Amino acid sequence: MSQTHTARLMDGTDLAHRISEASASRAAEITRESGTAPCLATVLVGDDSASVTYVRMKRARCEKAGIVSRHLGLPATATTAELVGAITALSQDPEVHGILLQHPVGPYIDERVAFEAIAPDKDVDGVTMRSFAAMSFGLPGFVSCTPGGIMRLLEEYDVDPAGKHAVVVGRSAILGKPVGMLLLGRNATVTYCHSHTTGLGSIVRQADILVAAVGRPRFIRGEDIKPGAIVIDAGYNPGNIGDVDVETARTRANLITPVPGGVGPMTIAVLLAQTVEAAAEQLGLGSGRSVLRS
Amino acid sequence: MSQTHTARLMDGTDLAHRISEASASRAAEITRESGTAPCLATVLVGDDSASVTYVRMKRARCEKAGIVSRHLGLPATATTAELVGAITALSQDPEVHGILLQHPVGPYIDERVAFEAIAPDKDVDGVTMRSFAAMSFGLPGFVSCTPGGIMRLLEEYDVDPAGKHAVVVGRSAILGKPVGMLLLGRNATVTYCHSHTTGLGSIVRQADILVAAVGRPRFIRGEDIKPGAIVIDAGYNPGNIGDVDVETARTRANLITPVPGGVGPMTIAVLLAQTVEAAAEQLGLGSGRSVLRS
Repeated sequence: MSQTHTARLMDGTDLAHRISEASASRAAEITRESGTAPCLATVLVGDDSASVTYVRMKRARCEKAGIVSRHLGLPATATTAELVGAITALSQDPEVHGILLQHPVGPYIDERVAFEAIAPDKDVDGVTMRSFAAMSFGLPGFVSCTPGGIMRLLEEYDVDPAGKHAVVVGRSAILGKPVGMLLLGRNATVTYCHSHTTGLGSIVRQADILVAAVGRPRFIRGEDIKPGAIVIDAGYNPGNIGDVDVETARTRANLITPVPGGVGPMTIAVLLAQTVEAAAEQLGLGSGRSVLRS
Repeated sequence: MSQTHTARLMDGTDLAHRISEASASRAAEITRESGTAPCLATVLVGDDSASVTYVRMKRARCEKAGIVSRHLGLPATATTAELVGAITALSQDPEVHGILLQHPVGPYIDERVAFEAIAPDKDVDGVTMRSFAAMSFGLPGFVSCTPGGIMRLLEEYDVDPAGKHAVVVGRSAILGKPVGMLLLGRNATVTYCHSHTTGLGSIVRQADILVAAVGRPRFIRGEDIKPGAIVIDAGYNPGNIGDVDVETARTRANLITPVPGGVGPMTIAVLLAQTVEAAAEQLGLGSGRSVLRS
């Protein structure tokens, strides 16, 4: 490979924009046909500034797409029972079609118990155990938003994972684990690496598709990228720095997601798309057609 | 490694026997303390001869351990709704502590829907979506029996998966996928291989721990076994032949499960252990102590 090789960038901003537009027209259609606008409830515990910003951003994007945003803020001192009670009420409320519990919920709450209070048909953020199993078994259901966005990006760039070796670095419940299962469902050979992995470099060097999801700046060395690889950098560290040493990686990869503008924008786009799908389903307008794919 | 090297055999028969004995004493204790014997309901659809044999074997082992066995047979023509109705009734029956739906259920039934009718606290065979997610996230719950048996065997032979590269060949919902997640939970680096994997041999050769779960006789070539590896052969093909070419594999591996007498006996042992745990929990005698570990 010549010194001047530069990987093509996978443009998440543009794709996310198109998905958001499609979600907006579908939301308008739903509102017109049913008389009810799709509604996403956001739930935030405490006032962590990053979480406040994320929730604000998600709500603004909803409103721009014609999705009603309902917000519920609980004090940092809220108990698991209080949070579960609030989420259960939203799960039962026919006016709410999707529920997003902003992670993390703080030290006083059993986050898993709280997540499980989200009704499966409203789990548009793909965080429940049922959604994870559905992703793992190739069953219908909502996907975790970042993994779903990654799969959609691969599709957009005509990357068929079948028979490719996908290496996922990171194993969180909402990113590493589900994206590995989705890749496995698309017939990739999948390796999960993490903090206990020995010889990480030698495994990364085998990756036809690399997903970096560790949250450590430039953790993946560019020289470990296999020539011609597809590199998905799902890290987002302070200063707009990804988990991959992008300068070197770009000289070797075939396709790479920039940070910012790669995986990041896809997450909210998937959230919007799944919220309108949930609303359509609950309002009896389900068409089987996904705005993610339009 | 000298020509005369022979891997040590991992004796599943003996370990399974000890677990079954422990389950039997715990069953007796539960019966004495609560006046109610633990009860496993087995459900069989149709009369496939292998399935009939498996169910008969499981029932006999239950009875030997002092676990009441209740059997429900449905005709091969049963519908999903009929099967779900029957399983739901067992889920609600306070006299039944565990439910096993024998796989496969035949072509007329949506097996996933049927599995999901099993109440989580009675899912002693570890087949529900919730149990899979619990295994994946390291949460309390019942494990799939064969994966659970494999993990227990590794423990018995002092194999700590942390930092080791575990390669799982096969990705079924009740064997390959969950055993990979359990190994990941014990901090192994985990690779899933399957029918679409390219260059299988080169991946198998990296395996510190190899789990073969494909159901194809001698599918894993002995010369691909990494010297010193731990080889778990979960295959059981006609003629007592495993998925691994054992003759060559034994000259290279450190530990290997024989077929038969390795993984096979562990499956029922885990079923018995989880049934008495379920009964103890439901009868208010839960001690947090697992007979699997005793």
